[in-house]
Amino acid sequence: MKLNVGLIGLGRLGRVYARDLAAHVTGVRLAALADTNAKLAEEVARELDVPRWYADPIAMLDDPGIDAAIIVSPTDTHTDLAVAALERKKSVFCEKPPALSLSQTQKMKDAAARTHGFLQMGFMRRFDAGYAAAKKKLDDGVIGTAIVFKSSSRDPYRPSLEYANPKSSGGMIMDMGIHDFDLARWYMGEAASVTAIGGTLAYPELNEVGDIDNAIVTITFASGRIGVVDLSRSGIYGYDIFGEILGTTGTLRIGYLRETPLFVMTKNQVAHDTVPFFMERFRDAYPAQLQNFVDNLRDDREPPITIDDAMGSLRIALAATRAQATGKTVSLADATL
Amino acid sequence: MKLNVGLIGLGRLGRVYARDLAAHVTGVRLAALADTNAKLAEEVARELDVPRWYADPIAMLDDPGIDAAIIVSPTDTHTDLAVAALERKKSVFCEKPPALSLSQTQKMKDAAARTHGFLQMGFMRRFDAGYAAAKKKLDDGVIGTAIVFKSSSRDPYRPSLEYANPKSSGGMIMDMGIHDFDLARWYMGEAASVTAIGGTLAYPELNEVGDIDNAIVTITFASGRIGVVDLSRSGIYGYDIFGEILGTTGTLRIGYLRETPLFVMTKNQVAHDTVPFFMERFRDAYPAQLQNFVDNLRDDREPPITIDDAMGSLRIALAATRAQATGKTVSLADATL
Amino acid sequence: MKLNVGLIGLGRLGRVYARDLAAHVTGVRLAALADTNAKLAEEVARELDVPRWYADPIAMLDDPGIDAAIIVSPTDTHTDLAVAALERKKSVFCEKPPALSLSQTQKMKDAAARTHGFLQMGFMRRFDAGYAAAKKKLDDGVIGTAIVFKSSSRDPYRPSLEYANPKSSGGMIMDMGIHDFDLARWYMGEAASVTAIGGTLAYPELNEVGDIDNAIVTITFASGRIGVVDLSRSGIYGYDIFGEILGTTGTLRIGYLRETPLFVMTKNQVAHDTVPFFMERFRDAYPAQLQNFVDNLRDDREPPITIDDAMGSLRIALAATRAQATGKTVSLADATL
Amino acid sequence: MKLNVGLIGLGRLGRVYARDLAAHVTGVRLAALADTNAKLAEEVARELDVPRWYADPIAMLDDPGIDAAIIVSPTDTHTDLAVAALERKKSVFCEKPPALSLSQTQKMKDAAARTHGFLQMGFMRRFDAGYAAAKKKLDDGVIGTAIVFKSSSRDPYRPSLEYANPKSSGGMIMDMGIHDFDLARWYMGEAASVTAIGGTLAYPELNEVGDIDNAIVTITFASGRIGVVDLSRSGIYGYDIFGEILGTTGTLRIGYLRETPLFVMTKNQVAHDTVPFFMERFRDAYPAQLQNFVDNLRDDREPPITIDDAMGSLRIALAATRAQATGKTVSLADATL
Repeated sequence: MKLNVGLIGLGRLGRVYARDLAAHVTGVRLAALADTNAKLAEEVARELDVPRWYADPIAMLDDPGIDAAIIVSPTDTHTDLAVAALERKKSVFCEKPPALSLSQTQKMKDAAARTHGFLQMGFMRRFDAGYAAAKKKLDDGVIGTAIVFKSSSRDPYRPSLEYANPKSSGGMIMDMGIHDFDLARWYMGEAASVTAIGGTLAYPELNEVGDIDNAIVTITFASGRIGVVDLSRSGIYGYDIFGEILGTTGTLRIGYLRETPLFVMTKNQVAHDTVPFFMERFRDAYPAQLQNFVDNLRDDREPPITIDDAMGSLRIALAATRAQATGKTVSLADATL
Repeated sequence: MKLNVGLIGLGRLGRVYARDLAAHVTGVRLAALADTNAKLAEEVARELDVPRWYADPIAMLDDPGIDAAIIVSPTDTHTDLAVAALERKKSVFCEKPPALSLSQTQKMKDAAARTHGFLQMGFMRRFDAGYAAAKKKLDDGVIGTAIVFKSSSRDPYRPSLEYANPKSSGGMIMDMGIHDFDLARWYMGEAASVTAIGGTLAYPELNEVGDIDNAIVTITFASGRIGVVDLSRSGIYGYDIFGEILGTTGTLRIGYLRETPLFVMTKNQVAHDTVPFFMERFRDAYPAQLQNFVDNLRDDREPPITIDDAMGSLRIALAATRAQATGKTVSLADATL
Repeated sequence: MKLNVGLIGLGRLGRVYARDLAAHVTGVRLAALADTNAKLAEEVARELDVPRWYADPIAMLDDPGIDAAIIVSPTDTHTDLAVAALERKKSVFCEKPPALSLSQTQKMKDAAARTHGFLQMGFMRRFDAGYAAAKKKLDDGVIGTAIVFKSSSRDPYRPSLEYANPKSSGGMIMDMGIHDFDLARWYMGEAASVTAIGGTLAYPELNEVGDIDNAIVTITFASGRIGVVDLSRSGIYGYDIFGEILGTTGTLRIGYLRETPLFVMTKNQVAHDTVPFFMERFRDAYPAQLQNFVDNLRDDREPPITIDDAMGSLRIALAATRAQATGKTVSLADATL
Repeated sequence: MKLNVGLIGLGRLGRVYARDLAAHVTGVRLAALADTNAKLAEEVARELDVPRWYADPIAMLDDPGIDAAIIVSPTDTHTDLAVAALERKKSVFCEKPPALSLSQTQKMKDAAARTHGFLQMGFMRRFDAGYAAAKKKLDDGVIGTAIVFKSSSRDPYRPSLEYANPKSSGGMIMDMGIHDFDLARWYMGEAASVTAIGGTLAYPELNEVGDIDNAIVTITFASGRIGVVDLSRSGIYGYDIFGEILGTTGTLRIGYLRETPLFVMTKNQVAHDTVPFFMERFRDAYPAQLQNFVDNLRDDREPPITIDDAMGSLRIALAATRAQATGKTVSLADATL
C-alpha cells in the first residue's frame, strides 16, 4: 500500500520535493498539492499528474485521501500547519527550521505529544552520502571520541534583501547556520554556550534590512568539547559546504567542491568548476530524506530527526544570533532566548 | 503527448533502464516490457506500473501502443530485434555494441536506411557530465587541436567465465574497449590503424574460455594523430574510468575516483573510498541518454549516435582484438575484419 | 663579502638553522656557534666546519668576527640576548616568539630603537611558498578585499609535559597560535578583540602542567573583519597547517597534506601519507627566511618582520589565552595584557 | 674522510650538480670542475669555492686529488670520458643516457669490467620520493604482482631545434623516454618487444630536424606482462611526470602536478599552478642521487644503477625509436639495434 502524501508549499524547494516525490521516492503517491498561489498549484499538479490541488492548505489537510503532509511552506507558517496536520491525524514531515521562536516550536512539540502523532523534521544534510558516512565512521569508533567539530557553509551569492530580512529569515546565522548546528548536535551532543562574531562585510546593502553576511560561531558543548561554524553569503567561487570532526584517534573531513569530473589544464594552470548551489549539492539528499520519511511511516519507525532536534538547533541559532549582536558569550540555558 | 516506449531485455542494465524510464525520464511512458523470462517481465511490470508485458519481444514490437523500442537484450539479439522494430516503424534505441560482427551491424544500417527509420545507438559515456563537458571544451577550442587521446577503463573484478567468453562478449577488448573506442572517434575522428598487446595476467582461469584480462591498444587516427586505450579487468581498488585529451594549447583530464565526499584521516594516512562499479559511475548518464533519445524523437532531431558511429567503434574493437592476437599492426581498412 | 653570523641555541631548530646556514644559504659564513651545552656546540661546529664555538653566548656576541647573531635559544633568553647583541652592534635575527610578555618584548624594541640596530623576527610561514603566494595574490587584488581569515594548525602528537608547561611555552594558544596570529595580522591588519574556547580534551595528563590541547580563537579585526584560528595538539593523522582568506571576489586556500606523491589503491580504498611534522612542512621556508635575513643585511633593506609585528602577534596570543581562561571577549587594547 | 670529486660538464644540469655537491651532499668535497668553456669553469669554481678547474676534462681526470668523476657532459662524450676515468682508477657517476648506441655503451661496460672500476649510472627518478616509495610498496607486496606498467612524461614546451636534433638527442623517444624505460625495467623486469606510434603533431618545425613531438610506446615484458609509455613535448600546462603500476591486489599511482600549495578560487572556478619543469620536479632527487653515489663509495657498496641497467633502457629506446619509424613490432633481441 502506497502512502498518500500531500505537499504544502511550492516555492523553489517545494517544487523539488514535489518532483522527487513524483519520480524518485518509492512507496508513496503524491496525492495532493497546496499553495496559496492556486495557479502554481494547478500547474505543478498537471505537470506531475497529481490528482488534487488546493489554494488553502487546511483544506488539503482535511482531505481524507491524504495520510501524511509534507510542509515546505514559509517558516512562519510551519507551526500552524504542523499543528493542524497533527490534529487531523496526518503524519508530518516539516522542513527546517521549525519556526523562528522556541515558543512556536514548543507548540509543535506539544501538538505531537498530545496527538501521539508522527512529526519528522527536515535536515537534509544528514542524508547526504558524506555526512551520513561520517556519522557511521564516528559511531563505528574509527576516530575514537569526537572532540572538535568544524563546519563551514558558503552561499555563492547574496540572497535578495527581502529573503535576507531577519524578520522572515531569522538572520543569516539562523538561516544558514541551522544546518551546521544540527550537524553539531548530531555528531557532538548538546551545546552549552556559544560566542559569535560577524558583520556586513561583503554586501553593505544588507544593512538596509539589518542582516550580516559573514559570521563565525564557536560552540562549547555540554561535554566540554568545542566546535566552530563559519558562515558566508559571499562564497563567490561556488556553493561550498564542508566540515571536519577531530577525534582522539583520527579526523573525518567531509565535502567536495568540484561539480564536473573534468580538469582543464592550460598554460601553467589546472582548473575545475565548483558546485553551483545547494540544489546541486544535495540533490540526492533531498529524495533520500523523503524516502526515509515514507519508509519510517510504512515500517512504523520513529522519526530519526525529532522536534527536539529541531528545537536544539534553533536554540543554538538563537543564542549565536544574540551572541553576535551583543559580543557576549551566551549560554544555551538562557531563559530569554 | 508522451512517447510510448517498450523495453526489451530485463537483465541488470535493462532493469536500470526500466526504472529510469519510469521515474527519471520525462515525456515518455513505459508502455510495455519484454523479456524471454516472462515471470521477470511480469514482476518488473508490476513493480513499475507498466501496463503490458511480453515473453516474446516480437509480439511487443507488434503492439500498436508502442512508438519506440529500447533494446537492452543480449548483444547477439540486437540485429534481429532492431531490424524487426524498424520494419514495424518503431523508432529504436539500441544498446552498444550493435553486434559482434560488421556484417550484422550492416544489416541494422540497411534496415534503418530502407525504412527511413530512427536508430539511436547507446554509448552512455557521451552523456556523462565529465565526458560531455570535455567535448564542449574541445569544440570551444579551449585546448586548441586535439592531438593525443588517452582512455583507461578498469573493472573492479573479473566477470563470470560465462560472461567473459569471447563467443558472447567478443572478448575483453570488445566488451570493455568499445566505450573507449567510441570516445576516441567522438573526440578525434576516424581511426586508421591499431596495435594491441595484452594477456591473461591476473586471472589465469580466463584461459579456459580464451579471454584476456589486461590490454593496451594504440590507435593511429586517419589524421596522423595518436591515442592509447588501456583496459583492465583487475582494477581491484574500484571501478575507474578516466582519460585525457592533449591539445596544442592545453589538456583535458576527465574522471573521478572518490564515491563518497569523505576523507578518513588516521595515523599517517588519508584515505577515501572508490567508485564501486559502472552503475554508480554512470547512474546519471543512463537516464540522460534515454532522455536524449526521447527528446530527439519528440523534437524530430537526428540521432546523435548513429549506427555508423557504432560500426566505427566496432571496427576498432575488431581490429584491436586481431592486433592483440597476432602481434601485428592492423589497418581499419582490412577487408577481413 | 660574506656576512659572518653567529648562531645561538642548538636545540632541534637551532641545528636545522646551523645546517641551513652551512649549506643552503648563500652570502653568509657561519662563523661561530654558541650553546650552553659546550659539548654540543663543539660537536656541531666540527660537523659543519664552523671555526669557533662558545658555551657563553655573550662571549660569542663579543667576538669581533661576528656581524650578526641568529637567536634560536629558549624563549626566555631572547630578550637579554637580543638586547646584548644590539648593544654590541650586531644585527639580529630572533626566532619567534620574542618573549612571553609584552614588557620583555618592549625591551627588545627599545634596544633596537636606541642602537639604531637591525632586528628581524622569525616567522617562517611567511616564507613558505603557499603562504607567500597567497600574500602576493591578495596584494594583486585577485580576491578583492580580504574579509574573513581562517587558519588551522595541528600537531601530530602531544609535546612532552615539560615542553607544554605554560611557564616556558606560554601555553598552547601562545606556542602554536603565534604563527597563525602573525598570518592574521599579515593578511588582515591589526586585531581588535578575541574570544577563545578550548580544553584538555585529548590528553588529560596535560592538566598536570596546566595546559590545554585544543582551542578555537576568533578574532575581530580593527576593520570589523573577522577571523578564526583553530589549534590542536591531537592532529594524529599528521602535521596539518592550512588556511583560507575569503575575499569579496574570491577565496585563497593554502595548504597540503600529502608528503609523498604516491597513492596506494587497494580494495575499495585510495590512501596517501601525510606530512610528518613542521620540519618537513617548512623545510624550504626555514632556509628561505635565513636567506632573506642575509640578503636584507647585505642589500641594506629594512627587516620585513619587525619587533612590532612580533609584539602584535604576541598581544593576540596573550589576549586569546586570557579569553580562553576567562570565557570573556578580550580587547587587544586591554592594558593588563 | 671526504670523497674528492671532480665534475665534468657545466651545462644547465651540470651546474645544478655542482651546487648540489657544494651544498646539499655530505661526505664529499667538490675538488675540481671541468668544462671546455674554461671561462665558465672558472666562474662556477669561484662561485662555489672549488679549488681547481680545467678546460680539458682528461687533465682533470689526471688530477691525483680526485677520487671520483661525475660526468654530466654531452651524451656523445660519455663513453670516452667514462672509459678514461675508469682507466685512471677514478670511480664514475655518469648521467643518462650512457651513449646513443649499444656499442658505445658496451665500451663503458667493458672498461668497468677490465678495470674492476665503480660505474654508477644516473637515473634520478629512482631517487624521487614518489617513485622510490612506489618501489618499496611494490617490493613489500602491497599490490601483489605488478602486471601493467604505465608512465607518462610531458615537457611544457618544445626544446630548441638544435637540442631536438636526433643526431645529438637520439630523438624524442630516446631523449624523453629513457627515464620511463628505466622505470619500466626497475618495476617490471626485462622487456621483450615494443611497438610505437607517434608524429610531429604539435610543432611542425621539428620536421626540419627529423624529430617527433608525441609518441606512445607499448612494451611487452619477458614475463608476458605489459606496459605503455606516452611522451609529449607539448605538455603546455606544465611539466608532468606520472605513472601507475597495476598489480594483482592493488595499484600504485605516482605523481603530482601542483607546485605551490595554493588554490585560487574565483567565480565558478578553482585553480592551481603546475610544476614548471624537471629542475623543480626533481630538485630533491638530484642531490639524493649524488648523495647515494657518495655513500656507495664511502660504504663500499655496489652501484644500484649499473651500466647494464642503462644498456637495458637504451635498448628499449632504440627499439621503440625503430618501431615508431617502421610501424612494426620490434623485438629487443633484434641484433641490429
